Amino acid sequence: MRIGMLGTGIVGRTLGSGLIGAGHEVTMGSRSATNPMAMEWMAGHETGAGVGTFEQAAANAEAVINATGGGVTLEALRAAGAANLAGKLLIDVSNPLDFSKGFPPSLTVSNTDSLGEQVQAAFPEARVVKSLNTISCDVMVNPGMLVQPTSLFVCGNDVAAKQETRELLGTLGWAPESVIDLGDITTSRGTEMYLPLWVRLMGALGTPHFNIAIVHQA
Amino acid sequence: MRIGMLGTGIVGRTLGSGLIGAGHEVTMGSRSATNPMAMEWMAGHETGAGVGTFEQAAANAEAVINATGGGVTLEALRAAGAANLAGKLLIDVSNPLDFSKGFPPSLTVSNTDSLGEQVQAAFPEARVVKSLNTISCDVMVNPGMLVQPTSLFVCGNDVAAKQETRELLGTLGWAPESVIDLGDITTSRGTEMYLPLWVRLMGALGTPHFNIAIVHQA
Repeated sequence: MRIGMLGTGIVGRTLGSGLIGAGHEVTMGSRSATNPMAMEWMAGHETGAGVGTFEQAAANAEAVINATGGGVTLEALRAAGAANLAGKLLIDVSNPLDFSKGFPPSLTVSNTDSLGEQVQAAFPEARVVKSLNTISCDVMVNPGMLVQPTSLFVCGNDVAAKQETRELLGTLGWAPESVIDLGDITTSRGTEMYLPLWVRLMGALGTPHFNIAIVHQA
Repeated sequence: MRIGMLGTGIVGRTLGSGLIGAGHEVTMGSRSATNPMAMEWMAGHETGAGVGTFEQAAANAEAVINATGGGVTLEALRAAGAANLAGKLLIDVSNPLDFSKGFPPSLTVSNTDSLGEQVQAAFPEARVVKSLNTISCDVMVNPGMLVQPTSLFVCGNDVAAKQETRELLGTLGWAPESVIDLGDITTSRGTEMYLPLWVRLMGALGTPHFNIAIVHQA
């Protein structure tokens, strides 16, 4: 699949490399078509990796992944262009974390709204699926690094887009039964509001390399 | 242990019965010493169960459990009386759920504060531990109903109080290694903000009988 990866941070680069390893083509998008982080990332791949502006990355893509920070997500998507997102699967991996008052971060939006909802509202023709925002990027691309299968979530209004996300996650090693469909895009609130617990778990466990497994009744 | 259980709802009654089954004495506290729900609950136990006002339940107890709804928690604890809580382990099971706008509930406090913190601030001499608020009451008293061991959290400023909570949870069948110490009482934010995800998981799974297991790196 041709994927436009918006955001050149550790999440975008790690997830982009993981997707290339799974056979996808990934164009890393950023403000500048010659972003040094993106250029260095591209140089680390023999094939499958490209760089461009947010607009170029989205225009060329079959599916777009938003891996920018929550604080710049809407601005980055506006730069990508609504026309370049229309009709496309847009996987929103971002979290509305606010580190401006130090650690632990609070959320810039929560409780009665979410960043996932704001993205869908701002780009009504994009097929937004919130996913992958509940784990660190190392676990995103290597679910087998944990001692047992764990759980991921998909939230979105478009059922087909959630199925496409499930298939894309499958190429990264996430078994279909480990991906739980929580419902429409308003369920993004739950996965984003899980972040304050995730952050404290990272502190208690001393590592970001963990995830939750949903355990059912016997 | 002599436990004062504040709240006669399904959580208080189920948790109270579970604790009696584990050998504890439980006095169910409510506004009225002759609350019909509490009287019926008491009648269902041959021994170990008592009823009283919030004040009586707390005064008589070695440890107090707040199982009232989040919206009435501070009022119930004021009725119990600061002097009756001073120096005692106070396990806060409540969640600040607001159903006033229907389903799903929002939280009345979140992000930069939590009900756990408000309880500790209002009763500085109580040794507050937030715990058990991330699971349904059936799972609280029967962790073995799930297909594998799952995780619980303790949040609080008093290390000894968290250890006493861990021991009390052990009598309900929670293995010590399944109880994760997240840190001081501010970490209550994380466990309370997990509720919106929990509520959506209940919807997706069709049952409240589930929990999360924290899964580590191999």
